[in-house]
Amino acid sequence: MSCDFMAQATPGVQGLHPYEAGKPVEELERELGISDIVKLASNENPLGPSDQAMAAVQALLADSARYPDSNGFGLKQALHKHYGLEGAQLTLGNGSNDVLELIARAFLQPDDEVVFSEYSFAVYPIVTQACGARAVVTPAIDYGHDLEAMASAITERTRLLFIANPNNPTGTGLMREELTAFLDAVPEHVIVVLDEAYTEYVAMAEFPDGLALLPDYPNLIVTRTFSKAWGLAGLRVGFAAATPVITDLLNRVRQPFNVSHLALAAAEAVLTDADYLQRSVEVNRAGMRQLETGLKQLGLEFIPSFGNFITADMGRPAQPVFEALLRAGVIVRPLAPYRMPQHLRISVGLPEENDRFLQALKQVLAC
Amino acid sequence: MSCDFMAQATPGVQGLHPYEAGKPVEELERELGISDIVKLASNENPLGPSDQAMAAVQALLADSARYPDSNGFGLKQALHKHYGLEGAQLTLGNGSNDVLELIARAFLQPDDEVVFSEYSFAVYPIVTQACGARAVVTPAIDYGHDLEAMASAITERTRLLFIANPNNPTGTGLMREELTAFLDAVPEHVIVVLDEAYTEYVAMAEFPDGLALLPDYPNLIVTRTFSKAWGLAGLRVGFAAATPVITDLLNRVRQPFNVSHLALAAAEAVLTDADYLQRSVEVNRAGMRQLETGLKQLGLEFIPSFGNFITADMGRPAQPVFEALLRAGVIVRPLAPYRMPQHLRISVGLPEENDRFLQALKQVLAC
Repeated sequence: MSCDFMAQATPGVQGLHPYEAGKPVEELERELGISDIVKLASNENPLGPSDQAMAAVQALLADSARYPDSNGFGLKQALHKHYGLEGAQLTLGNGSNDVLELIARAFLQPDDEVVFSEYSFAVYPIVTQACGARAVVTPAIDYGHDLEAMASAITERTRLLFIANPNNPTGTGLMREELTAFLDAVPEHVIVVLDEAYTEYVAMAEFPDGLALLPDYPNLIVTRTFSKAWGLAGLRVGFAAATPVITDLLNRVRQPFNVSHLALAAAEAVLTDADYLQRSVEVNRAGMRQLETGLKQLGLEFIPSFGNFITADMGRPAQPVFEALLRAGVIVRPLAPYRMPQHLRISVGLPEENDRFLQALKQVLAC
Repeated sequence: MSCDFMAQATPGVQGLHPYEAGKPVEELERELGISDIVKLASNENPLGPSDQAMAAVQALLADSARYPDSNGFGLKQALHKHYGLEGAQLTLGNGSNDVLELIARAFLQPDDEVVFSEYSFAVYPIVTQACGARAVVTPAIDYGHDLEAMASAITERTRLLFIANPNNPTGTGLMREELTAFLDAVPEHVIVVLDEAYTEYVAMAEFPDGLALLPDYPNLIVTRTFSKAWGLAGLRVGFAAATPVITDLLNRVRQPFNVSHLALAAAEAVLTDADYLQRSVEVNRAGMRQLETGLKQLGLEFIPSFGNFITADMGRPAQPVFEALLRAGVIVRPLAPYRMPQHLRISVGLPEENDRFLQALKQVLAC
């Protein structure tokens, strides 16, 4: 009789649901027999990557047989110049997904508790479950974080608390005053992870900059990614900023060569490409207005968004709408896995992509 | 008083030693004021990357703002063609380091035991410790695995057993008959991880191919990397092959976008570049003879190696030799961290690099 390897896995991993990824565009094209698919499903930067970043990658291709710099010296220097962060505060990750996981693995033991909100990023429950810890999910208010409920959910067993600002997949945002009042109230034994993957899209005086809050809150970890406004999702690079003692712990768990030499170079280069970032933000702002206007014209409600995506209520089960859009060559994200079965999340694309989506949606809803 | 975050970390992580990486060549050049450093320290492919692999990377640069295919469809197809492995047997990793870690995280709980040999790859104790499990280290025979001692070390608490073949950092190898006799004796509740990072360098009828053993041993996981003979260390890609139930568990823990789009494409392309692999192996064979001859002429003993590196006994403390070589612009690897304080590990380089090392060593030893 063969051994039951499933039973040999850790209890946390036994309870993990395998991640179900979207199909690659190429596969969908083959299946549907169409050729010009618009992908507005993964909150990617529709401009494509920065030319400066790609030039930096080109220049390093010949070095591809050498291991990357395990300390990310060049990128950390660039992060210092750009954000004023010290090397001892920085943990580089293979995307911010990687640093979120390092945080969980450094601090979570079975039966520890992790607090996060309903409608928050799917990676928080996954990394919690993988460590065998217990997720404490607080109800949302208007699809955003209910900070009072989150504070009330903290117990002696709470080790981590995740907040995304702006939040994915709903696009909601917390203002500085409410966030700092919350941080003041959180006991210091709870590490607060502030996931700012979408922060570059926000231009608003009242919106907090987590990095500026670090000196005041030693229990705060801020995570950032180069996958969104910086346009490097394919290359996998992000970082966490925190106090040196937490940073030391995260780097103990980090694989020494977790970020490729090309990702390090691309991130370093794009940080100096202010034009690219500005264009990314402007294209997003214009596209967001375009989508809001179009959704209103279709009589659909949406959640006002601080990110590079907008989440809209189809007023009916969203799965058939999603599938009809697919057949029309437009990929968006259905939110049933987030228990929002009537909502679709649409990434902001280029003007013609947004238009293509709106036209397709109009036809689908008319059926 | 500030919170003691170190005490909040998991016991395993508290006991982890931060990884101390070698300095990048550029940093060393600045420090030493020299410009033509030869790096024979990380068992990299001295040919540089395959042109075909780099062409595949070039072709995808414009897609860098899109997320990678989380299922690695194209690379898995290529692995099927090249090795006959099915998708349900494959777990792709950000280097084989990543899959070694996934294995530990899927199966290890605190107080589980992990068996590996003295003088084996530093990542085995690290991933064991990070999970809070207990390392059971068996003594080596002639710097290689003592399979009898390893079998005897197995208890009811043993979950994993790591074997590298060829072994790093000593270069020793196990032949097929001794390996299969061992696998026959291992109880099926113990998962055997056969790390074949260097297997492409071996051309010997008696040497086992772990992938061919998979059908006979459901508790076997074979790991491979593209960082050595395939010349893609900078891009970070490797894989594990195992039975589908184990593969399912590893993929539950895997981050969905753990391998970059460029690494996926490069690995897919290099698998069809038979010329490159052949040249890699030939350059290594010639360089190994060159190093063996040179070391013999210097009167130094070395461990016969199946890999792309050779480990030699300096006959005196190796650290000062290492440092003197550094000043002469040659980086090799001192093995004090492996409790081999008289040994240096030298990666096989191009003929002129090997010569440069041998000349420098001759001068250093003459002092």
